[in-house]
Amino acid sequence: MFFYILIFLAILYLWWRWGAQDGQKIRDLTDKYIFITGCDSGFGNLAARTFDKKGFRVLASCLTEAGAAKLKAATSKQLQTVLLDVTDPDNVRKVAEWIKAEVGTAGLWGLVNNAGIMGPSAPTDWLNIEHFRAPIEINLIGLINVTLHLLPLVKKARGRLVNISSTGGRLAVCGGGYFPSKFGVEAFNDSLRRDMKAFGVKVSCIEPGLFKTGLSNRKKIIEEREVIWNQLPPAIRKQYGEGLQRSDRSFMCHLALSA
Amino acid sequence: MFFYILIFLAILYLWWRWGAQDGQKIRDLTDKYIFITGCDSGFGNLAARTFDKKGFRVLASCLTEAGAAKLKAATSKQLQTVLLDVTDPDNVRKVAEWIKAEVGTAGLWGLVNNAGIMGPSAPTDWLNIEHFRAPIEINLIGLINVTLHLLPLVKKARGRLVNISSTGGRLAVCGGGYFPSKFGVEAFNDSLRRDMKAFGVKVSCIEPGLFKTGLSNRKKIIEEREVIWNQLPPAIRKQYGEGLQRSDRSFMCHLALSA
Repeated sequence: MFFYILIFLAILYLWWRWGAQDGQKIRDLTDKYIFITGCDSGFGNLAARTFDKKGFRVLASCLTEAGAAKLKAATSKQLQTVLLDVTDPDNVRKVAEWIKAEVGTAGLWGLVNNAGIMGPSAPTDWLNIEHFRAPIEINLIGLINVTLHLLPLVKKARGRLVNISSTGGRLAVCGGGYFPSKFGVEAFNDSLRRDMKAFGVKVSCIEPGLFKTGLSNRKKIIEEREVIWNQLPPAIRKQYGEGLQRSDRSFMCHLALSA
Repeated sequence: MFFYILIFLAILYLWWRWGAQDGQKIRDLTDKYIFITGCDSGFGNLAARTFDKKGFRVLASCLTEAGAAKLKAATSKQLQTVLLDVTDPDNVRKVAEWIKAEVGTAGLWGLVNNAGIMGPSAPTDWLNIEHFRAPIEINLIGLINVTLHLLPLVKKARGRLVNISSTGGRLAVCGGGYFPSKFGVEAFNDSLRRDMKAFGVKVSCIEPGLFKTGLSNRKKIIEEREVIWNQLPPAIRKQYGEGLQRSDRSFMCHLALSA
């Protein structure tokens, strides 16, 4: 008798679980607009194609016309692309106005801040301030500016915001502006998460480790580093040893490069 | 008998400790140059006066002529002041050249990166990108630029480097650029620490909590916030409630303001 009751309860539980899972499914996808930055390649590109396939209304920003055309060719007619350089305030403002017109009264259901670069990563004393500034302008200030412009639309939809940070937002593996920029994203993400809670807007942060995207292109990183090495004053080259131009003292940097 | 041996060993231990402590004392202070940024007030000012009193050769940078004159009047003839806006690359380069000429072959024994501002802190959707940029340019990019220019001199002296971060470099208490900037300092500090280890340069980070300095000036912070509030679009003012202009939803922000 007890055994049958147990079986009955187990079936009841499974039936309830099934119903709960079903309730978690997102419905009416064609009403839901998602804006994603940096869709030329990597995570942004994959996210745009994935959400498009699921039926969401994807607004995908690309840095290059070639990137936008390629994405357009690979996706449905519903997906729209727009050119955006997140470091150009005027460009950001205009794209935000375009999004506002597109989404109308629905607001923006999702914002994925994905655009980013690695920037030159090398021992700190190889670098100048412009090496640091490049990733900080794109990954941190650009991300904040896009967010500030689109927050009213996300609030309107009681939507969600996903910031693509990095494991490098927790651990500064080697010199360069990438890590300060991603640490900064963590700070921005966390205060934004609390500020938006009262508006029913969810803010999340993704911290990818080493993935094979354009960002971790080994050849490009080594080439960038060689350019820097070749411009270094002889005194610093001597300190590091002439034979080291293709490598680095830091084992962790090697690890990052071999991804 | 055993008791007397114990007493003897205790005295021996104390004598050894005394000697060890004496060995930790820094000698020949008059050979040792310390450069400190942001000496107009607060921690920078206190550090400059303290190191000057101890006999170090203090090179103190101030943002304002008034700050420099006041510091000069309160310290020995040995202390030298220089005007520096860390966000002006040309200014940073010239000051670095001046320091190089001053320290000569001794190099720079110590560098204290202290200059910083709080910047407007308010809920994220009250702010524009320039509110975020101000502290990021000073606290993060300015700090990195000063460091890059002076690293060769610090390496020469096998010196030490102290970056003034904040507890806000660990926890983003409220919206605004202060927290991303200080998170970034933590990243820069940590990679620099590892990069400089091989050169005998020690890199430290100080994370002050709430201290009564110009940075946490309650009146100034509230005034800045009121200016922002008065420029907000009516829609956002309505969301937050008209009665809230002198306060904030966040308890932690209140805490920071009441410091």
